[in-house]
Amino acid sequence: MAHNLIGIDLGGTNLRCGIVNDHCEILAHTEAPTPVAEGPAAVIDRMAEQVQTVLADAKLQPGDITCIGLGAPGPLDGRRGVVIEAPNLGWRDVHVTEMLQERTGIQTILENDANAAGFGEFRAGAGRGCQNMIMMTLGTGVGGAVIINGQLLHGPDWTAGEIGHVCIEVDGRLCGCGSRGCIEAYASASSTARRFVEALEAGEASVLAGRDRAAITCADVFDAGRGGDPLAHRICMETARLLGLMAGNMANLLNTERCVFSGGMIRAGAYLFDAIRAACDAHAFDTPAARLEILPAELGDHAGLIGAAHSALAILGKA
Amino acid sequence: MAHNLIGIDLGGTNLRCGIVNDHCEILAHTEAPTPVAEGPAAVIDRMAEQVQTVLADAKLQPGDITCIGLGAPGPLDGRRGVVIEAPNLGWRDVHVTEMLQERTGIQTILENDANAAGFGEFRAGAGRGCQNMIMMTLGTGVGGAVIINGQLLHGPDWTAGEIGHVCIEVDGRLCGCGSRGCIEAYASASSTARRFVEALEAGEASVLAGRDRAAITCADVFDAGRGGDPLAHRICMETARLLGLMAGNMANLLNTERCVFSGGMIRAGAYLFDAIRAACDAHAFDTPAARLEILPAELGDHAGLIGAAHSALAILGKA
Repeated sequence: MAHNLIGIDLGGTNLRCGIVNDHCEILAHTEAPTPVAEGPAAVIDRMAEQVQTVLADAKLQPGDITCIGLGAPGPLDGRRGVVIEAPNLGWRDVHVTEMLQERTGIQTILENDANAAGFGEFRAGAGRGCQNMIMMTLGTGVGGAVIINGQLLHGPDWTAGEIGHVCIEVDGRLCGCGSRGCIEAYASASSTARRFVEALEAGEASVLAGRDRAAITCADVFDAGRGGDPLAHRICMETARLLGLMAGNMANLLNTERCVFSGGMIRAGAYLFDAIRAACDAHAFDTPAARLEILPAELGDHAGLIGAAHSALAILGKA
Repeated sequence: MAHNLIGIDLGGTNLRCGIVNDHCEILAHTEAPTPVAEGPAAVIDRMAEQVQTVLADAKLQPGDITCIGLGAPGPLDGRRGVVIEAPNLGWRDVHVTEMLQERTGIQTILENDANAAGFGEFRAGAGRGCQNMIMMTLGTGVGGAVIINGQLLHGPDWTAGEIGHVCIEVDGRLCGCGSRGCIEAYASASSTARRFVEALEAGEASVLAGRDRAAITCADVFDAGRGGDPLAHRICMETARLLGLMAGNMANLLNTERCVFSGGMIRAGAYLFDAIRAACDAHAFDTPAARLEILPAELGDHAGLIGAAHSALAILGKA
């Protein structure tokens, strides 16, 4: 049966909404800043307006839509439709699906944003055609999604997929989660920039040494690294190595077919991916390492809404 | 439909064979030393004899048996029924299922021994009643099994489940796999004994200092640790902490319900498990940590044959 779906990607900065069909084509799309300061009700109003906009653009009625899939930051409880805590939104215990369903009349399913982006890539991007994939989203943190036998792994509490909080260094760097040594504490975009600034503060030389340290981004570090700055290069290669080690861990543990990375860092291309590949191959057994394809995400900003829409369909058992 | 199954646990030391029913009850059982030195054909002959023995004991014919599940050390290819390399057996590219089927006339399915033991515990032991479990087998190495949504995870190459080769320490101890920092290099029974002996060789004091170092086992270290020897206690608690950290990694990644440990080390009881629990809780997020039960295996030497039998049934789609 053919389905028209609505996918929403609720971020701390932008709200993206689109109509997505069975083939993951986007039939209509709109985007707006998230009115975070106005509180949850205003954000939900804005989403409901976006739903009306895309329906009108596609000349569809609410009754033509099978469901809305809403990707949101967490922790959240997808089964109850509740965002438990979202620091970027200032939300706590917001019953977002109930509120959005009331305003739109369309059944709504809540999904973790990293899962949504991962499932979007799985269905329509770098994961197309495989059955087992992990995604690591490199931003402020390291988000994760685990797809096994074609299905997103949610786990009994809907918390599965936290690849960013797998420890790779006992008693290592302090992580935002309160533990130590998580991959997120080293290899997120933010952690990469932070490790670079720490090295500057320890007196190491770099072409970026004169810059406002608080303003140095991961992109700056990668640009300097690719440009030949030895310190920036070392920091970038450390990040790549740890990401590759984690890809290798997933190969050994899950014999996964694809490991997809997303986030601005992937614009570094072969400079990043060749080093990830080498570190993965150095760690993992030959057979699962040979199986694993390590790829950049393909869908950019559309991954989240495509994945939220299609995850909702899968959760409703209609996929 | 009721099934009678035969499970075989092929180890480097012992061959165990039993008839197992739908309820994981063992109807007949036999055990013999594995004639490793005589080569694969002799080992397969011995298994075929065991099959005849248990059939006679249970007053059953080959036609009463749905399938044989054979748990063997690997790496192996369960789909082709080939043990690719088993150092403990001295085997390389042995087409074991074909050879055993010829001798018994019963369809045979090959399974990794750690997967078999994990699936046995899942169906009939410490994993009963859950849907998502991991097992870590603490012996010479650290074997692993991952069960998701009630199914053993094999992966496309049949290599999934190598929890022992997840890196928890970048540039850490050299592992038997050739990589560094794998949990196996620290927390297997052998690695625990080795870390203790290294500390003795570095001049640390212990009640075991006068012993023949080559003969010191993990059990000796745990006995001394529980008896109050400070060095042995430290080594045991390091092992427990790393096992707990890995349990926490699995909780964060997979939101798994149970983490089951097997091997002689579990006889240390609360001395071991309390420290594993504490380290898991210190690392993992609250919700998945609260979900995760950490338990000792219950089935002892029977886990492998029960699990091999029932995994075979599941693989044949008859479970």
